Amino acid sequence: MSRLSDIGEDALVERLVRLVPTGEAAEGPGDDCAVVDNGGERLALLKTDGMVEGVHFLKGADARAVGWKALARVISDFAAMGGVAERFLVTVALPGTMEVSWIEGFYEGMGECLERYGAKLAGGETCRVPEGSAAVISIAATGSVERGKVVLRSGGKSGDGLWVTGRLGGSLQGKHLAFSPRVEEARWLAEHFRASAMMDLSDGLAKDLPRLAKASGCGFRLERAAVPLTEGCTLGQGLCDGEDFELLLAAPADAVAEGWAERFPELGLTRIGELVADGEGETLAGGWDHFG
Amino acid sequence: MSRLSDIGEDALVERLVRLVPTGEAAEGPGDDCAVVDNGGERLALLKTDGMVEGVHFLKGADARAVGWKALARVISDFAAMGGVAERFLVTVALPGTMEVSWIEGFYEGMGECLERYGAKLAGGETCRVPEGSAAVISIAATGSVERGKVVLRSGGKSGDGLWVTGRLGGSLQGKHLAFSPRVEEARWLAEHFRASAMMDLSDGLAKDLPRLAKASGCGFRLERAAVPLTEGCTLGQGLCDGEDFELLLAAPADAVAEGWAERFPELGLTRIGELVADGEGETLAGGWDHFG
Repeated sequence: MSRLSDIGEDALVERLVRLVPTGEAAEGPGDDCAVVDNGGERLALLKTDGMVEGVHFLKGADARAVGWKALARVISDFAAMGGVAERFLVTVALPGTMEVSWIEGFYEGMGECLERYGAKLAGGETCRVPEGSAAVISIAATGSVERGKVVLRSGGKSGDGLWVTGRLGGSLQGKHLAFSPRVEEARWLAEHFRASAMMDLSDGLAKDLPRLAKASGCGFRLERAAVPLTEGCTLGQGLCDGEDFELLLAAPADAVAEGWAERFPELGLTRIGELVADGEGETLAGGWDHFG
Repeated sequence: MSRLSDIGEDALVERLVRLVPTGEAAEGPGDDCAVVDNGGERLALLKTDGMVEGVHFLKGADARAVGWKALARVISDFAAMGGVAERFLVTVALPGTMEVSWIEGFYEGMGECLERYGAKLAGGETCRVPEGSAAVISIAATGSVERGKVVLRSGGKSGDGLWVTGRLGGSLQGKHLAFSPRVEEARWLAEHFRASAMMDLSDGLAKDLPRLAKASGCGFRLERAAVPLTEGCTLGQGLCDGEDFELLLAAPADAVAEGWAERFPELGLTRIGELVADGEGETLAGGWDHFG
């Protein structure tokens, strides 16, 4: 009998999506969000995400920060498609001994994030887990993107340059709870930098770069010396820590980020390699696997 | 410091919804689904729901049945608004020791339910809970209802009759895992029976009838002898067991369910009381409270 920890997350997802009707979604499981074409001027985006006590946040973590993170993670996924999140649904599964003040703080943190990014909470559900079980928070959201501006993971081409925003590694020292999703940055990159493929870095470059390349039907070459690292971090941390919530994107080799530095003076945009033909290039190991 | 188990689910939800922007939803937290008016011919419906191992299903439960139930619970909520579910998102938080065959069976059960009710899975997320923690499944869904046919909990009026479909109680003997959401029945009742308020019975009539009356700004009188009971069940079980997944509705006193028996020959529709003016009527205790 194989167990989840034997096969890892990506293989599991590949097995599961074959078992259910997934519809005519323009892009289904595998991208940051699902894309649904309802025929209007905007494409609908849908996303669900889970956070587990002891995995994504610690028992003693500040409730407001956990609430912020829960929504910001998902807003980051919408950003990575070039889109925006609009309405949220939250399910919290908690032990009965949880203090009411904690869940109130969690909701206040969600409220701050909703205000900051102009989204709304449409519904919520609370349920009880047995004593001793980890609290689980699940966030689902709807959003949208202009039909011509959606950026998928799968749009990269051999020869495209690979770029990241910001600096990677060391997220656990605090950033993972208090980051700002790159919404404006992603929309700028989709519009002015001809981004051909994009995703947000949640599981570490070592895990996510191969995903983007595979979705685009390409291999990749990474210029390790070029990877922008958080101060004090090693390359290994930069590749594998996860929860950077920066953008990874591909863009045509001749794309120039003219105006980026003026528009976003505090955030770097760094070329870290290129997409190459499938079967060429290199491999990367490491990064975060939920069941690895 | 008060704890969740001290204040109960309804009071908790009332406190939490004040802490976040909830938008201009036609009906927000408190009904079976959130209703969003995007200006089209149909109103959008949104819903999230949680299921916990050891609470909503047992560790050894058949995975396919759990998958069916996870979606059917939510389809039942959409039905109770007079609407249909369209796209689902699923987050499963599982221990790494879980057998792959279990989660595959769970997806197969979801697939059967999606096929039966014409809905699609738009996205999924798997994450790991620490060993020893209960598995948690969260389902979110989008759906819709014709603008003129939505039925809220809050539309009941003093003098309306109260009705339930089917028989109540004893769900744990099997029905809770293998029920059929009353989608066609609800749409028929909205159209032909002038249902003024409706909800699905998930936490037991003793908990849910006061909710419907309160949302409608009414009191209620329950004719206990009229409550249709599952064979072998006491009135106490019929009122408090929960997970009946039948419809509770209000309809004008002169409404006649002409044609019901021909259309749904195997399902009863029983008058069990009436809505009265707020402050009159009676009270009911019991039913399922997640934190009670």
